[in-house]
Amino acid sequence: MAESIKDKVAVIGVGCTNFGELWDKSVSDMIVDATYEALGDAGVELKDIDAAWIGHWCETSGMTGLGLSGTLGLQYKPVTRIENACATGSDCLRNASYAIACGVYDMVLVVGAEKLKDMGIAGLPNQVPLGTPNLITAISAPGLFAMMATSYFHRYGLSPQEGKRMLSHIPVKSHHNGAMNPKAHFRREVTLEQVMNSPIIAWPLGIFDCCGTSDGAAAAILVRASEAKKFRPDPVYIKALQICANPADGARRNDFDFTHIEACYRAGLAAYKEAGIKNPRQEVSMAEVHDCFSINEAIVMEDLQFSPRGKVKDDLESGFFNLDGGLPVQASGGLKCFGHPVAATGLRMLYEMCQQLQGKAGPRQVKNPKLGLTENMGGHPADNVVSCVIVGL
Amino acid sequence: MAESIKDKVAVIGVGCTNFGELWDKSVSDMIVDATYEALGDAGVELKDIDAAWIGHWCETSGMTGLGLSGTLGLQYKPVTRIENACATGSDCLRNASYAIACGVYDMVLVVGAEKLKDMGIAGLPNQVPLGTPNLITAISAPGLFAMMATSYFHRYGLSPQEGKRMLSHIPVKSHHNGAMNPKAHFRREVTLEQVMNSPIIAWPLGIFDCCGTSDGAAAAILVRASEAKKFRPDPVYIKALQICANPADGARRNDFDFTHIEACYRAGLAAYKEAGIKNPRQEVSMAEVHDCFSINEAIVMEDLQFSPRGKVKDDLESGFFNLDGGLPVQASGGLKCFGHPVAATGLRMLYEMCQQLQGKAGPRQVKNPKLGLTENMGGHPADNVVSCVIVGL
Repeated sequence: MAESIKDKVAVIGVGCTNFGELWDKSVSDMIVDATYEALGDAGVELKDIDAAWIGHWCETSGMTGLGLSGTLGLQYKPVTRIENACATGSDCLRNASYAIACGVYDMVLVVGAEKLKDMGIAGLPNQVPLGTPNLITAISAPGLFAMMATSYFHRYGLSPQEGKRMLSHIPVKSHHNGAMNPKAHFRREVTLEQVMNSPIIAWPLGIFDCCGTSDGAAAAILVRASEAKKFRPDPVYIKALQICANPADGARRNDFDFTHIEACYRAGLAAYKEAGIKNPRQEVSMAEVHDCFSINEAIVMEDLQFSPRGKVKDDLESGFFNLDGGLPVQASGGLKCFGHPVAATGLRMLYEMCQQLQGKAGPRQVKNPKLGLTENMGGHPADNVVSCVIVGL
Repeated sequence: MAESIKDKVAVIGVGCTNFGELWDKSVSDMIVDATYEALGDAGVELKDIDAAWIGHWCETSGMTGLGLSGTLGLQYKPVTRIENACATGSDCLRNASYAIACGVYDMVLVVGAEKLKDMGIAGLPNQVPLGTPNLITAISAPGLFAMMATSYFHRYGLSPQEGKRMLSHIPVKSHHNGAMNPKAHFRREVTLEQVMNSPIIAWPLGIFDCCGTSDGAAAAILVRASEAKKFRPDPVYIKALQICANPADGARRNDFDFTHIEACYRAGLAAYKEAGIKNPRQEVSMAEVHDCFSINEAIVMEDLQFSPRGKVKDDLESGFFNLDGGLPVQASGGLKCFGHPVAATGLRMLYEMCQQLQGKAGPRQVKNPKLGLTENMGGHPADNVVSCVIVGL
């Protein structure tokens, strides 16, 4: 029978660049910055690294496993590139974790990096063309997620005004948190009125419902859990690491459900089982989730069983997911404030979890978190791969 | 201390499409063909697969982890895409092997697939533009490997005629073997005179020194070694699996050595240590290596310690690497006869090893092989990543 990697792998160091319009940085520059912060955080040197995994999505910049090797001078070390759409960062963590768990390396580096601003997709927020050959190919990312929003409003009987207001709580919360995060791209609070009246990208999603287009990189250093305390008193242990894919077939069925993401629900379920969590709403201390669009954060709250189906509105309105709420979500500011440099995102979420669990998050510090969950999604509502990682001290 | 995965992972099924100009097959078609042959070979069903890894290099065809999931209908299963240049296939095997070795899955699928004929790089053999930003960027692949050949001739005092003749033995041997392989792209014997007088691509490399441009896919199914005999009496065990990268810095040094590939030497050394091999020339029964160009096969013979430095000529002329020689190399026909659909190659080599070790290679069967080595190289002489895998019954 298959075994869990729970408590077999530990994160001993993390690094993260400032995210933003980094016109003066190449992908290599960002990799170096994130890696050296992680090495410093772990108190180790580059020569201690046995192997490395690079997460990178954008093909045009040409960053490969070998490119990572050249960038860092990892001469004669094993290097690999992982790509799994917008879930690339967390899948990079997953593959490297297996290598640590099976014992072939003592210490490995994972880096996710992406430059979106140089790619010519800087026009509209997250307006990346989707290449999957299915019925909804011609629809942009905001258009697809807007369909989730209108489907959700319809299914749960929300008027357009009620639905729009519900969603608007999400960016207000994220910008409140992100304004306190020195590494975030967008660091300004916004009001409910500003969000509700912002220019529409694809109704009901306005500009504040869409994450930005940013450059950034994040890195982590992994060792076997049994070795971790040799490096620091407060390593962060991987309690669960699950990934689930729901390919495009779903979009072709007349009964396809645009009001939940089955792969997210299943990845969450598997992660809770692996971590031994029975009541996620009670037991998960905080979460960083894939809020590429506000509706996705709302629906993910239900898929991850933080809110009952159709009831996320109540939790959003009561502030349950706020920094001082029962289950803070996007304490970092989320994709909303960091943008979504594709392969960096999953590891940027892990970075925030380590800061929070180690009590280093400054003014946005969550009170005494025990278990943090990251949810990283690749694809779109009808064709996706979702990774859930649960970490704790 | 790091542990070996020796004898922890077994291959219970392999599949391989015919390689060639598969104008009527999409990448998805080829994936399906290779996967179902592997499932049939293992005597298992798709539903038994817990997770899958897709190796794919060419970005334009858009095959992702999610694409593999959709292609095969692997609904709600974990999927990942690996890319590591021309070593993508073997690195895919490596990452999946770690997942099996650490116990998180009971049975996984690895597939490598590539369509080169549709990509517009079908003009000259293996004339793929190389994107690495180093001093030799503007040189084509044949041009780079031609530099190895002239450097090798110079270093070991071979006249142009002697060198050209030495190299020409390699395609003669490969075509002899490939002519007996129903899955090969090019299935015709060639004579030494034909090879020596063939049109020059980049001197001394003629058209017969260059592998072709082909489409193809190969797949394998992995389980933990302890479970393998439940599926078949003759599973193939992974005895060593090593990867080493030598990034482009080398090309910038005045003392860069174009007469050997350090990453290949080191990957081989590590693999021999892992497999417990003291004398590779004696103990390795057969090898499938990365003969993208004939000179690469010649030099790899020395890097893998099959021939002493500067002495591969003697072994080529004496037929040591022939099908009936002391150490048959490219029993399948190699990249020379299969072409090099990038991500398929490493797994296509594994396919041949399984056929040979299980005594199913028909007229090209090597006599009683015990240990087979595959060497899969990404990059070019001065900037590369090399994987060495050793398998045995």
